[in-house]
Amino acid sequence: MDKALLEPVVSKILDEMRLRPIPLGVSNRHLHLSQQDYQQLFPQQPLVEKKALLQPGQYAAEQTVTLVGPKGQLEKVRILGPLRRRSQVEISRSDARVLGIAAPLRMSGELEGTPGIRLVSPFAELVLTNGAIVAQRHIHMSPLDALIYRVQHGDRIQVAVQGGGRRLVFDDVAIRVSPQMRLEMHIDTDEANAAGADDPHAYATLVPRS
Amino acid sequence: MDKALLEPVVSKILDEMRLRPIPLGVSNRHLHLSQQDYQQLFPQQPLVEKKALLQPGQYAAEQTVTLVGPKGQLEKVRILGPLRRRSQVEISRSDARVLGIAAPLRMSGELEGTPGIRLVSPFAELVLTNGAIVAQRHIHMSPLDALIYRVQHGDRIQVAVQGGGRRLVFDDVAIRVSPQMRLEMHIDTDEANAAGADDPHAYATLVPRS
Repeated sequence: MDKALLEPVVSKILDEMRLRPIPLGVSNRHLHLSQQDYQQLFPQQPLVEKKALLQPGQYAAEQTVTLVGPKGQLEKVRILGPLRRRSQVEISRSDARVLGIAAPLRMSGELEGTPGIRLVSPFAELVLTNGAIVAQRHIHMSPLDALIYRVQHGDRIQVAVQGGGRRLVFDDVAIRVSPQMRLEMHIDTDEANAAGADDPHAYATLVPRS
Repeated sequence: MDKALLEPVVSKILDEMRLRPIPLGVSNRHLHLSQQDYQQLFPQQPLVEKKALLQPGQYAAEQTVTLVGPKGQLEKVRILGPLRRRSQVEISRSDARVLGIAAPLRMSGELEGTPGIRLVSPFAELVLTNGAIVAQRHIHMSPLDALIYRVQHGDRIQVAVQGGGRRLVFDDVAIRVSPQMRLEMHIDTDEANAAGADDPHAYATLVPRS
């Protein structure tokens, strides 16, 4: 088959692939810990995998902590593994209001100027001096997905969520590309509630740029 | 000035009016009570206005109750006045999860098949057999606003919320038209959090139908 015949076929396949639903991952409040912070909270205990997440190598751990803010606290907040270079607590705006902290909207790892929070385990407690954020909504994808969707790492795109009775289009959805990543959109519980994404019929699709 | 000259001017004015920001009203969890239910919870006490709402005649009352569900409770939930024909409790999906009830997405007053909930005041308690809902997002407007926006009571339209760092377009926004209503979009706290609408720079605009 020569190239002139092949190109329209490939183009049609790509067009259809761009319409595929993007798997939705709803992030409940959770935290990542550094080795040092983890060992202070859970001395002499390995971090134990409870459930694998869609992103390869990532998992929800058996261990949980209580987040304590000036106005309130949230119990049984799960640690995600593996341990990281820096500790980071990801909460929703609703959670931030319960705790009484002004957690800003940030990409994972962008922790400069973010507020701290107190962490309490069954064995110890620890005050993080920063690291409390509301996660910027984003899509993880492989370089092949990025080619299909014609986007690049760092782009901001639009995603429609429908089928759950609260249809909306999220703008400002950040693109994260890495060979280790699988296609998945991460939104927090406030965003999932607003979009009806807890409904099993809900699905997300990328809105083509005009 | 003859009609042929006037029409383009009027058309231009209307085009600009359609681009005006729509005032955003964020509804925290609240309830409306019937005369009978109110009197059972607050015997011998008048409902006292604490703060007027934008919609004429509507107000937040001094009186609050505790909502008690099978999984949890929410305290200091405000009664909105005046009293109504039927009692109705409006909560967010986040609240519904805390309480442990499956409150469906409904327009105000559409209470058939909705779950009940226990209400506790400082003086008495009461079990509503139904009336717990998550409110369908909607815009109140006058007939003149409806003419300007070219919409009718019952229409579903799209509204963009931006300026708060979490830009999105809400679809399925119901239009409610009445001579007693002022232009105002009502969303709940989950929706406000997802849209960054708690930011003072956030504003809403109607998305023109194509």
